[in-house]
Amino acid sequence: MTQPTPIDTHPLARFAATLRWQDIPDAVRARAEDLCVDWFGSVLAGQGARPVRSIACFALSQGPAQGPSEVIGQAASTSPLMAALANAAAAHVAEQDDVHNGSVFHPAAVVFAPAVAVAQSLGASGAQLLTACVAGYEVGIRVGEFLGRSHYKVFHTTGTAGTFAAAAAVGHLLGLSPAQMQHALGSAGTQSAGLWEFLRTAADSKQLHTAHAAAAGLMAAYLAKDGFTGAQDIFTGPQGMAAGMSTDADPARLTDGLGTRWATAETSFKWHASCRHTHPAADALLQVMQQHGLRAEDIAQVTCHVHQGAIDVLGPVAAPATVHQSKFSMGTVLALAARFGHAGLGEFDAEFLAPGTVALRERVAMVLDPEVDAAYPRRWIGKVTVHTVVGRVLQGRVDEPKGDPGHTLSREEITAKALRLARYGTALPPGRAEAAVQRLWRLHAWPRVQRLLGED
Amino acid sequence: MTQPTPIDTHPLARFAATLRWQDIPDAVRARAEDLCVDWFGSVLAGQGARPVRSIACFALSQGPAQGPSEVIGQAASTSPLMAALANAAAAHVAEQDDVHNGSVFHPAAVVFAPAVAVAQSLGASGAQLLTACVAGYEVGIRVGEFLGRSHYKVFHTTGTAGTFAAAAAVGHLLGLSPAQMQHALGSAGTQSAGLWEFLRTAADSKQLHTAHAAAAGLMAAYLAKDGFTGAQDIFTGPQGMAAGMSTDADPARLTDGLGTRWATAETSFKWHASCRHTHPAADALLQVMQQHGLRAEDIAQVTCHVHQGAIDVLGPVAAPATVHQSKFSMGTVLALAARFGHAGLGEFDAEFLAPGTVALRERVAMVLDPEVDAAYPRRWIGKVTVHTVVGRVLQGRVDEPKGDPGHTLSREEITAKALRLARYGTALPPGRAEAAVQRLWRLHAWPRVQRLLGED
Repeated sequence: MTQPTPIDTHPLARFAATLRWQDIPDAVRARAEDLCVDWFGSVLAGQGARPVRSIACFALSQGPAQGPSEVIGQAASTSPLMAALANAAAAHVAEQDDVHNGSVFHPAAVVFAPAVAVAQSLGASGAQLLTACVAGYEVGIRVGEFLGRSHYKVFHTTGTAGTFAAAAAVGHLLGLSPAQMQHALGSAGTQSAGLWEFLRTAADSKQLHTAHAAAAGLMAAYLAKDGFTGAQDIFTGPQGMAAGMSTDADPARLTDGLGTRWATAETSFKWHASCRHTHPAADALLQVMQQHGLRAEDIAQVTCHVHQGAIDVLGPVAAPATVHQSKFSMGTVLALAARFGHAGLGEFDAEFLAPGTVALRERVAMVLDPEVDAAYPRRWIGKVTVHTVVGRVLQGRVDEPKGDPGHTLSREEITAKALRLARYGTALPPGRAEAAVQRLWRLHAWPRVQRLLGED
Repeated sequence: MTQPTPIDTHPLARFAATLRWQDIPDAVRARAEDLCVDWFGSVLAGQGARPVRSIACFALSQGPAQGPSEVIGQAASTSPLMAALANAAAAHVAEQDDVHNGSVFHPAAVVFAPAVAVAQSLGASGAQLLTACVAGYEVGIRVGEFLGRSHYKVFHTTGTAGTFAAAAAVGHLLGLSPAQMQHALGSAGTQSAGLWEFLRTAADSKQLHTAHAAAAGLMAAYLAKDGFTGAQDIFTGPQGMAAGMSTDADPARLTDGLGTRWATAETSFKWHASCRHTHPAADALLQVMQQHGLRAEDIAQVTCHVHQGAIDVLGPVAAPATVHQSKFSMGTVLALAARFGHAGLGEFDAEFLAPGTVALRERVAMVLDPEVDAAYPRRWIGKVTVHTVVGRVLQGRVDEPKGDPGHTLSREEITAKALRLARYGTALPPGRAEAAVQRLWRLHAWPRVQRLLGED
């Protein structure tokens, strides 16, 4: 008996539908391109992982043998839906993809995968793709903030908010009207899913969550383009997201600073391939070494001045037995950073038990620092005291870990990271990933989005 | 830092994986076949609906141009995933598909669509298909009961529990081990979704929910077959379904009577195409008419003795203006039943405003009946007093509406209903649906599941 009731278009739907390239500040446009290159590296890094191969294999088996959309890292091309499924699964597995701190949401995995697949299918320009991805970031991050901490306790926000992010990005590419975008967000939210329960046994669900979000959001947008209707108030309606999946949802966050505050540019890059709690100290150590021209063998001892959370999480890991565990060992992370200038996926795999790593690891200690602890989690300050073998005592300090918005990566660093990730996850011929990354740096000028990795 | 912890296989996963045709009582086997024919009619009825066409069109555009699985009612065949998406969308739109009262769950839509698509792809036998579908019904109904009333207030259980039902049915066909089935249920639950918010504006999400559940469950099962892992305690773990999506979940319901209580056989068929509150009185009127050889024109007045809920929902509808509204008009429903012996989709569309219908509609009244009201909702008793034009006063009574387990449909009635639905939703050549239904009645003996509707 329910009759359709006209309802105003939500400002978030209108924003996502009507955002134009010329509305986006230059710095945000450039950051979107940075995030795209960073995402591309993460997709290449994830190619070989078993859960990713399972999802890609399923997607290819259920899709057409040929299609307009690239399955990155494979010769295959398929339909946009299936490419989105495969590529979204790949982006998140190496845990090196971007993160928005306030929403605890990893936007790249669920935005770029469906948007690139659809852009390739439509022949959209690079600027159109980037505009759509900014729409996806702005929507997804705000939905994550809206859903709040109570949601994040049980739900994996990258899966849930990610469905909206994917719908917004794809809907923008499809040219949805504001009303159609509202329907797309309704259809996205009613498919929104992802529970943390898999953590209990380290199951593969994280890859399923990004794949699902990308595919469900893409489908929501395509259906809306065809006139399929969705809930008009999926966020705050009495049987919507907040009612079912949050106890502290804050509707004001959905529209916070729309068009003036660019959440896209608040997104952090991950630099080291380790637990985030190790990053500030690792960066402070690298600063000391660079400033004083130290090599790893010059270091006698390192004292890290840290927040309590770092001691809680990292303290128990004295002698890591596995690669995964070593990423939670402050000593291992600092030793790899000191020895190689960076603690990346490859360094962990090859060197976490090497004698040079273990020797230095044993000479790293943590102490609680009141200033660092008081600033956390608003700021992640890194402070170290380094004793050298010749008896010098040196202090290092960084106020934001490398990759955070106030200490973001340069394009050279993003390139280097992406190429490291490509080498880690693929066996591409020399120069192929490098050429692809160099092309991607001109994405804003592409007249038409083609295969990102190029042809074999 | 989470390390895999061995956990016992949940009895529900073990049951779904190991159920055998020979374990299923004859009456339940036959009921599964009944439910399959009934589902087939609902799929044909839904073919022409706009939201169904949108989803089918999307599925066909994203899948292969040819494949092993039938898109029912179309010449097209595609991959199992895409056929499941399209066929699951179709089954629920006419609101004539089956329902399990205790779980408020519509199993057929989310079980048969993915199971048939996968059985066609594997070349499974009819008995294998039916066994898998019984596994799907038993799992989905128990998950719905487990999630409880608090869940149903916000979530559309057919979408949420449906994801598990689809995974169980498909997983059974794929021959998953109990451990793999547990992973499949974990992957299903972490994609489980569907919010009632769409009701506010009568949006199309119901079709999306069944399509999504079928596709997500199918994917969960295929991935599990390939070694992809899922949460081990998706139901009751601290970050699982109960934690995130229910406040009154009852874990005992997950295993209630497994292997002895057959929830499949508790499932109700819908007979009239109207609000369920009208069914008991319509059946009681038909009983009187049959018993006393009355025609519609013999009836002077009908008094329905009803529960308060019927008055609340149906009372305001005095002069229905639309087909949809007329399904909530007790007078219209009884008039159509009296005139045509059945209030079906076709009767509503063509006759709800016909003079003969309106004249009889005006002579139907409802009064609250203490006995009927006290029995509700455990029993839906139908009681009418009929005054005839020649002055007779006749009483009619049914203790369960037609289609409920204690008053189930005969195979002749199921056939008649399916063919009515086929005529309603398709323009098939004469005899084609009939031949298909007759073939389906031998499903248990099929050596290999082929196209249900046959070739053009």
